[in-house]
Amino acid sequence: MADGGEGTVESVIAATGGDLVQLTVKDPLMRPTSSFYGISGDGLTAVIEMAAASGIEKLKPEERNPWITSTFGTGQLILDALDRGCDRIMIGIGGSATNDGGTGMARALGVQFLDNRGNPVGEGGGALASVHRIAMDGLDRRIGKTGIRVACDVTNPLTGPRGASAVYGPQKGADPEMVQRLDACLGHLSGIIEKQLGMKVDDIPGAGAAGGLGAGLIAFLGAELMKGFDMVAQLVGLEEKIREADLVITGEGKIDDQTGYGKTPWGVAQLAMKHQIPVVAVAGTVAGGTEELASCGISVILPIADRPMSLEESLRRAPELLEGTGRRIAGLIRLGRSFR
Amino acid sequence: MADGGEGTVESVIAATGGDLVQLTVKDPLMRPTSSFYGISGDGLTAVIEMAAASGIEKLKPEERNPWITSTFGTGQLILDALDRGCDRIMIGIGGSATNDGGTGMARALGVQFLDNRGNPVGEGGGALASVHRIAMDGLDRRIGKTGIRVACDVTNPLTGPRGASAVYGPQKGADPEMVQRLDACLGHLSGIIEKQLGMKVDDIPGAGAAGGLGAGLIAFLGAELMKGFDMVAQLVGLEEKIREADLVITGEGKIDDQTGYGKTPWGVAQLAMKHQIPVVAVAGTVAGGTEELASCGISVILPIADRPMSLEESLRRAPELLEGTGRRIAGLIRLGRSFR
Repeated sequence: MADGGEGTVESVIAATGGDLVQLTVKDPLMRPTSSFYGISGDGLTAVIEMAAASGIEKLKPEERNPWITSTFGTGQLILDALDRGCDRIMIGIGGSATNDGGTGMARALGVQFLDNRGNPVGEGGGALASVHRIAMDGLDRRIGKTGIRVACDVTNPLTGPRGASAVYGPQKGADPEMVQRLDACLGHLSGIIEKQLGMKVDDIPGAGAAGGLGAGLIAFLGAELMKGFDMVAQLVGLEEKIREADLVITGEGKIDDQTGYGKTPWGVAQLAMKHQIPVVAVAGTVAGGTEELASCGISVILPIADRPMSLEESLRRAPELLEGTGRRIAGLIRLGRSFR
Repeated sequence: MADGGEGTVESVIAATGGDLVQLTVKDPLMRPTSSFYGISGDGLTAVIEMAAASGIEKLKPEERNPWITSTFGTGQLILDALDRGCDRIMIGIGGSATNDGGTGMARALGVQFLDNRGNPVGEGGGALASVHRIAMDGLDRRIGKTGIRVACDVTNPLTGPRGASAVYGPQKGADPEMVQRLDACLGHLSGIIEKQLGMKVDDIPGAGAAGGLGAGLIAFLGAELMKGFDMVAQLVGLEEKIREADLVITGEGKIDDQTGYGKTPWGVAQLAMKHQIPVVAVAGTVAGGTEELASCGISVILPIADRPMSLEESLRRAPELLEGTGRRIAGLIRLGRSFR
């Protein structure tokens, strides 16, 4: 299981027997970059991590500049998925380098953002100030027949003190003045969307995710936001698999007090509890206060370390340590079954 | 469980509800030192670690000198146990600083070692060369009615290339020349024991344990050597306890390939297997190749670490980590019982 963040593509491919697609798209500064997305085992559902094209990790610290960075590459990933016949697209939108309201993404799919002379405006959050008209007629026609779902666990609105620019702008390279101007740019875009497309996106929870990509996916592609866990659970058919299981084993790098507040193992346990299937969790680190997880349906939490070791060793030996932990779980359950 | 080595007294006291006796005796250099032994829950059985009086840890490295070190303090512990009415004495003899053939121990209990003028010889392994006669008539009469058992897992004879001096002399501070002379001294003592007491102790496996204390306990006190595990198992009534149990949990600091060759968890598992009681083992470190322990009756081995950590943290948090491990064992067995 994944939660829509980093590793989601890999996880869905593994869980459904899907394929990895590797391709070159444009990075946040419109340079060519190696990217990827997944097609799940049904061959019709694409799984995209926006960060694989438009992520902050694509840029050196000194290159980070949300005034000019673009989600164009994310749009190219969507386009490629359409070209391969996918009719469902799932997008995880964490870790963006951008603040362009998803306009770059939409542009890659044929939407035009024109200034008051009818000329296309440039890439990036700063150029939004010049947008006068949104020309939707060029939008790839396949989008209308494609279900697009967005994994989004944040609830930020598009603009204002809790908006995309104010909350996430600084970590993308914006100084306080730029934050203010970016916020105004997104506000301007939002106004045009309302006037021309008849949609009020500003206050939708999650509209401000990924520099407003949340709002853009809703406004330009008709996407639906949902919780990351729910999206992945749907993708991998988690509930059906749990219903048929005798035991559910879930896990996370670290299981602690926070795990009970919506993290992946908690989500798995909620589904398992619904079907009265017992749950065991495994973790690299099991931190204090985890007893209350019992009330979430997690019976036992096992750490994987087999001796004192460094974090580095734990990460490096994780596959082997997980295997050993699995043997222990099986051994003790078998032992328990022998008691009458 | 313990194996007759360090921690045996503490372990037996804990397992039987016994008492710790603290007293001052003579250290290997005949200086006063704080020491201890245990009396098990029956009030009649003393449990002694010779190292608590005559151990190498009682001396600074530069003080180590098996030519002069004495087991006198160990004899004082035995004497105190007799004074308190004990009629069974169990002695663990690891970690000695001595090479005196147990003569110091015997002297504390009234045996005299006299030179050819009838004068007592001095303390230590070097003085044995002057022993001409052993006067047993002063031996505390209670010894004859006391069962004395010695935990001894080594099989070294008293003298020769596998003897006490050659094998353990160097770590007690003897240089090669002293090793040779100490070996000759023990050989001389052994000759006198044979001539005057009519016992051939030299080749008894374990006679060379603890600088010949093994031989001395046999020759002067009529003691019986046995495996450390068997001694402690007997003391704590291990087999009876296992027979009444549903599950046995054992453990050791490190469980590895060596564990199957007679270490404590293996001994516990042997007894459990005899009565078809399942065994779970816990350890600070679980090292590779432990699968074959299944054939020894150990179903599952659980490491106690709950995250990446240093050895120091593992030791410091051991009680808490063991408690967490116990909860996990209980949780998984309970889970297993719920499967039908």
